[in-house]
Amino acid sequence: MHGSFHFALMKIALDAMGGDRGSAPNLAGAQLALTAYPKISKLFLVGDEATLKRGMAEIRLQDRRIEIVHASEVVEMSDEAIASVRRKKDSSISRAVDLVKSGDAGAVVSAGHTGAAVAAAFFKLRCIPGVGRPGILSPFPNLVNPNGICYLIDAGANVDAKPEHLIQQAIMGSVYVSYVHGTKTPRVGLMSNGEEDSKGNAVTKEVFEFLSSLRERGFGFKGNVEGRDLFAAPIDVAVCDGFVGNVLLKGCEGTAKAIKGLIKTEFTKWWLPWRIIGALLTKGALKEAGQRLNYENYGGSPLLGVNGVCIIAHGSSGPIAIKNALRVGAECLEHEVNPHIAEAISAYLSSTAPVPAGSSPSAL
Amino acid sequence: MHGSFHFALMKIALDAMGGDRGSAPNLAGAQLALTAYPKISKLFLVGDEATLKRGMAEIRLQDRRIEIVHASEVVEMSDEAIASVRRKKDSSISRAVDLVKSGDAGAVVSAGHTGAAVAAAFFKLRCIPGVGRPGILSPFPNLVNPNGICYLIDAGANVDAKPEHLIQQAIMGSVYVSYVHGTKTPRVGLMSNGEEDSKGNAVTKEVFEFLSSLRERGFGFKGNVEGRDLFAAPIDVAVCDGFVGNVLLKGCEGTAKAIKGLIKTEFTKWWLPWRIIGALLTKGALKEAGQRLNYENYGGSPLLGVNGVCIIAHGSSGPIAIKNALRVGAECLEHEVNPHIAEAISAYLSSTAPVPAGSSPSAL
Repeated sequence: MHGSFHFALMKIALDAMGGDRGSAPNLAGAQLALTAYPKISKLFLVGDEATLKRGMAEIRLQDRRIEIVHASEVVEMSDEAIASVRRKKDSSISRAVDLVKSGDAGAVVSAGHTGAAVAAAFFKLRCIPGVGRPGILSPFPNLVNPNGICYLIDAGANVDAKPEHLIQQAIMGSVYVSYVHGTKTPRVGLMSNGEEDSKGNAVTKEVFEFLSSLRERGFGFKGNVEGRDLFAAPIDVAVCDGFVGNVLLKGCEGTAKAIKGLIKTEFTKWWLPWRIIGALLTKGALKEAGQRLNYENYGGSPLLGVNGVCIIAHGSSGPIAIKNALRVGAECLEHEVNPHIAEAISAYLSSTAPVPAGSSPSAL
Repeated sequence: MHGSFHFALMKIALDAMGGDRGSAPNLAGAQLALTAYPKISKLFLVGDEATLKRGMAEIRLQDRRIEIVHASEVVEMSDEAIASVRRKKDSSISRAVDLVKSGDAGAVVSAGHTGAAVAAAFFKLRCIPGVGRPGILSPFPNLVNPNGICYLIDAGANVDAKPEHLIQQAIMGSVYVSYVHGTKTPRVGLMSNGEEDSKGNAVTKEVFEFLSSLRERGFGFKGNVEGRDLFAAPIDVAVCDGFVGNVLLKGCEGTAKAIKGLIKTEFTKWWLPWRIIGALLTKGALKEAGQRLNYENYGGSPLLGVNGVCIIAHGSSGPIAIKNALRVGAECLEHEVNPHIAEAISAYLSSTAPVPAGSSPSAL
């Protein structure tokens, strides 16, 4: 009963103009998601109506669950984040967030200007009570975790984070993994410049003390972790300031891209023909290895802490990334991530209850 | 004349006990360096005399330039950095730094506990006048730069850096590239959470203003850069806080290691035998691609800003990494990096002279 009530609410607003490649990957991704996820009961496509109708006709996208919501403006990458919310009131991202604010949609997904999406969500939806700042929860491929993922929070929403922000983000990340992945006590690490307890900067040292004290209330704090631990340590969530997380995320992306480029260069040296043969024979292997690292397969990054589900997708998202971002949005609704975050934050503030409150996955 | 005076001073102290694998890679690396670099006039091997003599006999390391300096203690990875300097006065790293302090050596190289090496250098050698904190200058493989390198400063010496520290580190990094690589006006980027001028945290925004103002005095400030730019942007130096730099460095290392592991897994699936054949045919290619990323080929990271040359090598350094770390130490002496840093910092403080002072490489 509870489940069917909930599925009826699985309404998602897609910023159909967002991303480096405009509406095309958004519409193709919407098509994939509507086919794959019958649970989605409504999909708002927000953007220029004429453009969207033309794009839908081109790929023969027809679904009674689709509703086009016209928005006359688009936030450009050159726009300043906060100013874009104030000045471009009829932008596709602002209108999409408005649908969540009004309750017409439960979740918003955008591959557009990340700063603008964060600002629109933060100013329009406001934070869950007890949460000071939202944080972007970004998935990393982890080679030792059963679910293959370690999440980094915050990947860039909130720079100059205060200790309480990092503590809230640790709790929010833990709640997400607990309910979406069904992990009983998610293992949470604090990103630092070394694994030893003594390592850290002024902010993380304070956070370390706090999170350590939450251990006796059932919180799975595992101490300091390092950048490399995202990929290879038994950790579900790594917590850091948004500035640090953003630099780290882009550094990891850059490393992967550099390695790809170096391998390609070596594989295509025509004066070493056995390499080209070998490259052909191993193409599938490299592709499969690459798939584990491809953000497209992970989908978007939830912006945790705002009143409403907000999923940030990569600017260069293709259809598969958009499809997966819509899936992540649907999962947040299905597993009631936000109500559980509110509960856990409230339990944390009550200073005696277990944190996060209820560590078993949602019944849904 | 000046040159020969200088070469006579090319005396280096090696912390021969430092690193995860003890004295063996240090001694083997010393052997390689003494053969490769006749300019090294003296090499102090600092550590337990009996251990070193036994190790030297094993690999038949004999060279009249070697002098063993006995040190009875070793700083362990579990030791606290600053405490180690106070409590283990007869450690190999402390004794090696003492040789620089006394003027017997011009440079010290250590693959031991990084924090201990930084603390020993900072407390014993003190900073160059005008420099508040030293910074670790760490080389990254860069695919677009002619020299193949972009340096990150600070990779972990100084967490909670103040704006003035980052400005000093920008200048020191620029001087290093200018004199060691002969780059006329090194291009300096400020690590941030986005390339736009408006991006940054409270500290970097202040640094951005300062470095922008140095442009008119000849400083090659190129604005904000992102984590990925280390590998693929036309930038010689990227400046950041030591906490951020350390997290970033280890994240990039972890990414490379994860990719290596994933490729290996895919290549050794016995039920897909063509992959194994392909893997054999492309082995050289992957190895060559890997070499571009292998820190062993770059050698150590100079700790810039202290009165004396101090080179930090990776804890897992093998002989080639130690050899290259000794080369980096020799290069700092040969190109008079520290006197040039003192000059540039003094010019910067004088508030009108060009910064860094003299952008052409040293005559040596």
